[in-house]
Amino acid sequence: MNERDALRAIAADLPQAGDDAAVIDGTVITTDMLHERTDFPPGTTRYAAGWRAVGASLSDVAAMGAAASAAVAVYADEAFDREALTRFVAGAVDVCEAVGAEYVGGDLDEHVEFTTATTAVGDVTDAGPVTRDGARPGDALCVTGEWGRSAAALRLFKRGDDGAIERANELFRFTPRVADGLALAGTATAMMDSSDGLARSCHQLAEASEVGIELERDAVPVHPAVEEVAEASAERFELAAHFGEDFELLCAVPEEDVSGVSEACPAGLTRIGTVVEGSDGDAAARVTADGDPLPDRGFTHGTDK
Amino acid sequence: MNERDALRAIAADLPQAGDDAAVIDGTVITTDMLHERTDFPPGTTRYAAGWRAVGASLSDVAAMGAAASAAVAVYADEAFDREALTRFVAGAVDVCEAVGAEYVGGDLDEHVEFTTATTAVGDVTDAGPVTRDGARPGDALCVTGEWGRSAAALRLFKRGDDGAIERANELFRFTPRVADGLALAGTATAMMDSSDGLARSCHQLAEASEVGIELERDAVPVHPAVEEVAEASAERFELAAHFGEDFELLCAVPEEDVSGVSEACPAGLTRIGTVVEGSDGDAAARVTADGDPLPDRGFTHGTDK
Repeated sequence: MNERDALRAIAADLPQAGDDAAVIDGTVITTDMLHERTDFPPGTTRYAAGWRAVGASLSDVAAMGAAASAAVAVYADEAFDREALTRFVAGAVDVCEAVGAEYVGGDLDEHVEFTTATTAVGDVTDAGPVTRDGARPGDALCVTGEWGRSAAALRLFKRGDDGAIERANELFRFTPRVADGLALAGTATAMMDSSDGLARSCHQLAEASEVGIELERDAVPVHPAVEEVAEASAERFELAAHFGEDFELLCAVPEEDVSGVSEACPAGLTRIGTVVEGSDGDAAARVTADGDPLPDRGFTHGTDK
Repeated sequence: MNERDALRAIAADLPQAGDDAAVIDGTVITTDMLHERTDFPPGTTRYAAGWRAVGASLSDVAAMGAAASAAVAVYADEAFDREALTRFVAGAVDVCEAVGAEYVGGDLDEHVEFTTATTAVGDVTDAGPVTRDGARPGDALCVTGEWGRSAAALRLFKRGDDGAIERANELFRFTPRVADGLALAGTATAMMDSSDGLARSCHQLAEASEVGIELERDAVPVHPAVEEVAEASAERFELAAHFGEDFELLCAVPEEDVSGVSEACPAGLTRIGTVVEGSDGDAAARVTADGDPLPDRGFTHGTDK
């Protein structure tokens, strides 16, 4: 059983799960585990690891349109190296500070592999949480920021020279889109973060909202770092749309609100397509790019891309 | 560097850490990681593992005198077995229900070893959080429940027959003392849970409060299961005082309030000693049992006892 099937198997028992974060009495809470083998390529600094791991949970809070308040982490490794631990905590503290949250500590554990489990909590605004299931035909489909930065980072980690490694670590330290999520709360009809990549996220949002999505390839904002690592335009789109782990927001916004809310998003908001009527159960046709079906293919933990 | 030294190394960076849970704007949050090799002996059911792992975090909420509201968990294993996962979730749901909290899901991850990271959140009462540092000379030192159940469980797991394994799994499913913690909030001057064992917890509370503690050995309430596995009285005290992982509460209560608050604790509250003046920096003499120094020795992850 793979992770998606496993999630479906327990979905009936856990009605609050299934969105980016659970909501209980106005508090959102979300947790993630990352570990060395699958999430931190050789060359990843512990500072970048702390930033990124805690950032991944803060991104889930952002995706609910909530204000991030605090985060904790478990830091597990074969042995405790003071410098490594201090750098991890510094990254965790700094990413929290970048979004107005507080890093309040956590737990230490000995483990066979460097592993971190992070949890973030936040508060829903008066507009309520923004879930994945409210997109309506006619809404504009929008994204924050630029896409493909993590794909570019991974290629730079593989290149392995000092300059590439330094640049890769820099790309790994994304700003969770909490401010953008708050700007979109009350306006966006559906929202999620893009941990599984643009294509897969579009499929998930379309499925949850029972709608279709029509993307325009050229409208997807590609991160400049992707141009450093990929020459052909098709390859660039592949990295921007299928790789994932960019932790940007994907949302549906009523057409008339797009320009107003765009100005309120610090990371920028780009219209990349349109929400349309659903495809009557034909999952493959649910999301199209320039008219062709866009496969539901994205990041799978532990596989090389 | 061991775990305690590592925690000290980062303490200066994290003022909110260092108690059972961090407190931010009236919300308490705490996280823990448990894994197969060190925390779940062969024979532990996934139901008991889910109960116990989530219970450990709920116990930290209880120790702050807060009402537990929700918990999440990351479930990581080499492969996802539907039945195992379902049983884990059922244990997590049930332990939350036992303390009036809600289990709201979490994350799945592939890992080299069955590992779970749990986080619980709760709300502080009007009396504020109960920390470890407020005990005053003259206070009564009290504990909830009965001690040594996890030590007894471990011996039963080792015995290995079906009856012993079943009984051990039952002992592993403790009730987090949330109701007791709430009853004690506003009255207890200091409180913590006993994850590291009675002796070590006494040292930690005495150090944080800058006081001494005088215990009476015979006053420590020993769990009946300890009598099943240990015949000699000295061995029973060893299991009840040094093993740990009982997840009971240890607290200091003003003498005049003991009998009143005892009646409000569903798990029962037993006076086991007295808070006295500090030992002027002599750490070994900080805690005594029947007049002799009680060593600061307890549960250390990954070691056999």
